Amino acid sequence: MTTGFNERLEAVCRERKSRLCVGLDPDSSKFTDEIRAELKATRGEATKSDSAELSVSWLVAQAVLPYVVAFKPNMAFFEAAGDVDGPAVLANRIGAADPDVVTLCDAKRGDIGNTSARYAQAVFSVMGFDSITVNPLMGWDCVEPFCRDAGKGVFLLCLTSNPGADDFLLPGELYQKSAERAQNKVNANRNVGLVVGATRPELASRVREVAPDLPFLIPGVGAQGGSLTETLDAIRGRDAGRFLINASRTIMYPATDGAGKGWLTRVEEGARQLRDSISSALA
Amino acid sequence: MTTGFNERLEAVCRERKSRLCVGLDPDSSKFTDEIRAELKATRGEATKSDSAELSVSWLVAQAVLPYVVAFKPNMAFFEAAGDVDGPAVLANRIGAADPDVVTLCDAKRGDIGNTSARYAQAVFSVMGFDSITVNPLMGWDCVEPFCRDAGKGVFLLCLTSNPGADDFLLPGELYQKSAERAQNKVNANRNVGLVVGATRPELASRVREVAPDLPFLIPGVGAQGGSLTETLDAIRGRDAGRFLINASRTIMYPATDGAGKGWLTRVEEGARQLRDSISSALA
Repeated sequence: MTTGFNERLEAVCRERKSRLCVGLDPDSSKFTDEIRAELKATRGEATKSDSAELSVSWLVAQAVLPYVVAFKPNMAFFEAAGDVDGPAVLANRIGAADPDVVTLCDAKRGDIGNTSARYAQAVFSVMGFDSITVNPLMGWDCVEPFCRDAGKGVFLLCLTSNPGADDFLLPGELYQKSAERAQNKVNANRNVGLVVGATRPELASRVREVAPDLPFLIPGVGAQGGSLTETLDAIRGRDAGRFLINASRTIMYPATDGAGKGWLTRVEEGARQLRDSISSALA
Repeated sequence: MTTGFNERLEAVCRERKSRLCVGLDPDSSKFTDEIRAELKATRGEATKSDSAELSVSWLVAQAVLPYVVAFKPNMAFFEAAGDVDGPAVLANRIGAADPDVVTLCDAKRGDIGNTSARYAQAVFSVMGFDSITVNPLMGWDCVEPFCRDAGKGVFLLCLTSNPGADDFLLPGELYQKSAERAQNKVNANRNVGLVVGATRPELASRVREVAPDLPFLIPGVGAQGGSLTETLDAIRGRDAGRFLINASRTIMYPATDGAGKGWLTRVEEGARQLRDSISSALA
């Protein structure tokens, strides 16, 4: 029997003693002079044709690699830069650097069945990612094609970290019903997880109640203001073990620290500190 | 004052006496020997490096151009074929062949604000599309970045044509509340439309009641079994005028007709007949 994606993720977390997922959102408006200088200095033969977006992402990925269990490149930033191949190149370089680390394509895809099947093919087979974020609005028949390969992971939007979660996901407790269904009907291949934002710990707790087995991908700690300890306390009751904390902007674009440390040093330290903070919060 | 997208769309429909949108879903599993032979025969100097997916789409687009007001390339089929540049190439060729025809990127995007802004940039500025399909599940703050440019259109998923619409869109009448909000709050730039499937005419009628001004993009006539006349009857009360009927598979992959007509001839006739059927149903 193939190991399901969730089991693999759990094993990687245990082995690496980390729950950290670093989101790779290469936003050129945040590329400071310091970052651009670093790009110039480190550009080698193999990477000289990389876009600035790909270069920044790859430098960050290498710097934080020892501390993470997963990387989550955000498709939008590559597409906006016209570098449509960037995410696949990145996923492959990460896989070559460390086959254990999980690659997660942040694409929020979802469409009618025959189209979802093609998105799954694109992200898993053509681009080579291990997992994807999926938007279930169009219904479960649109989610199913993503879940067919037990070795590939599917993180369903459940309770997002933005204010707009109030508009669709909260009314009628859609987020909770959706989590329940994901746990009981959709996870047959043990490869389904949920996106559960850190900005509403009391609701995250209700998601954990109805979906005890599913890994949570938790954005919203950091730039969006969610609390790490409150969130972990909230989901601790059942099995806090199955989760990833995602941070993107706070890792990639750290504030200067007064001590004159360089950008990549601050990136590395930020990732290490967040990994350690998660461990402390769990201890 | 800039003309809003919806006004432009309306003018194109009037001028071309058509309501037809042709979806371009280049599905290689449907490329028959006849289609492949046509590809070989028509491959010119300018297009010889095109992928088969791009070639088929472009042949179909040229064949049906006189009958349509819009083309809707489906991103998934290009991404699955590894031809990530295909949709942009297609949008630009269509724009060059006929600047009046509307290009609609079927991408179903939607993410937190800063990411949605990047998807909008990618689809409108980098790829050059006139409009996009957007998934509003994450909330209105995630929709807003797509609506900033009045000249670019945004079709929001409202009531889709697949069975799974029952799962999220129907409970609590989410589709209707969403349509109401789109009409009253989101359409300030007069560039917002709704995806309203043809498979549930009685519900389409309720959407038209609460959203009298918004253009509907209506999939589900054809391969998905929706009825054209029932749907148009259902939305006729208020202003049936603002809508597009989308057909994809039935146009691109027509059945053989016994008379021995070639693929592209059947494609062309299928588009002309559907355009005429829409006019008859409205008369």
